[in-house]
Amino acid sequence: MAKVTLTVCTTCRRIAGGEPVAEEPRPGNRLLDALQASGLPDNVTVKPVECLSACTRGCSIALSGGPARWTYVYGDMDPDQHAQDIIDGVSAYAASQDGIVPWRERPEIFRKQSIARIPPQE
Amino acid sequence: MAKVTLTVCTTCRRIAGGEPVAEEPRPGNRLLDALQASGLPDNVTVKPVECLSACTRGCSIALSGGPARWTYVYGDMDPDQHAQDIIDGVSAYAASQDGIVPWRERPEIFRKQSIARIPPQE
Repeated sequence: MAKVTLTVCTTCRRIAGGEPVAEEPRPGNRLLDALQASGLPDNVTVKPVECLSACTRGCSIALSGGPARWTYVYGDMDPDQHAQDIIDGVSAYAASQDGIVPWRERPEIFRKQSIARIPPQE
Repeated sequence: MAKVTLTVCTTCRRIAGGEPVAEEPRPGNRLLDALQASGLPDNVTVKPVECLSACTRGCSIALSGGPARWTYVYGDMDPDQHAQDIIDGVSAYAASQDGIVPWRERPEIFRKQSIARIPPQE
């Protein structure tokens, strides 16, 4: 099965979609650190990106994995609250064939904080 | 160069991000029709999708094309106003190697109505 990438925007200045904060490191960077420090499935790689162009919905992340899977973008993440839920969600995504996880098996932040999804490319 | 896919959400009920309308066919379907009726580069395929999960930002579209290109999601499209601008934008995207079109060469609707972008997968 194709490997999965969890892309984390490190430029995001918002926490859970709130007003931008001036703190350093930025909330997006803190979210990246929290995810990299956590136990992820072997077939999941965490990658930083400078901008996901979802700036008003930060912190933001994307899940992708080969041409057979749907891609998902999620926002309004909180680096202090949501790392474990993100790991649970990306683990379920990585275990699926096409990226579609049954609705009730998705963490609430994925059910409620979707920004967009993109169909498989093949 | 990898072919490019212009994905159009046919479920969208909004026009330019306004309140949902009850009209049939839906605005998203009308946008699909307008794009399919237009002249697109040979390496661009228009594909309908039932939902891009960007419902509050309809009409919505996505541009993608192989593992070497960035993927973009745009919203607040108007099926009566924006088909030609979308064609111009996807043509420039299709002519690029990595999907990144110089800022000033992007149509205004792409500069101002971005929902998200996702890095190349390779």
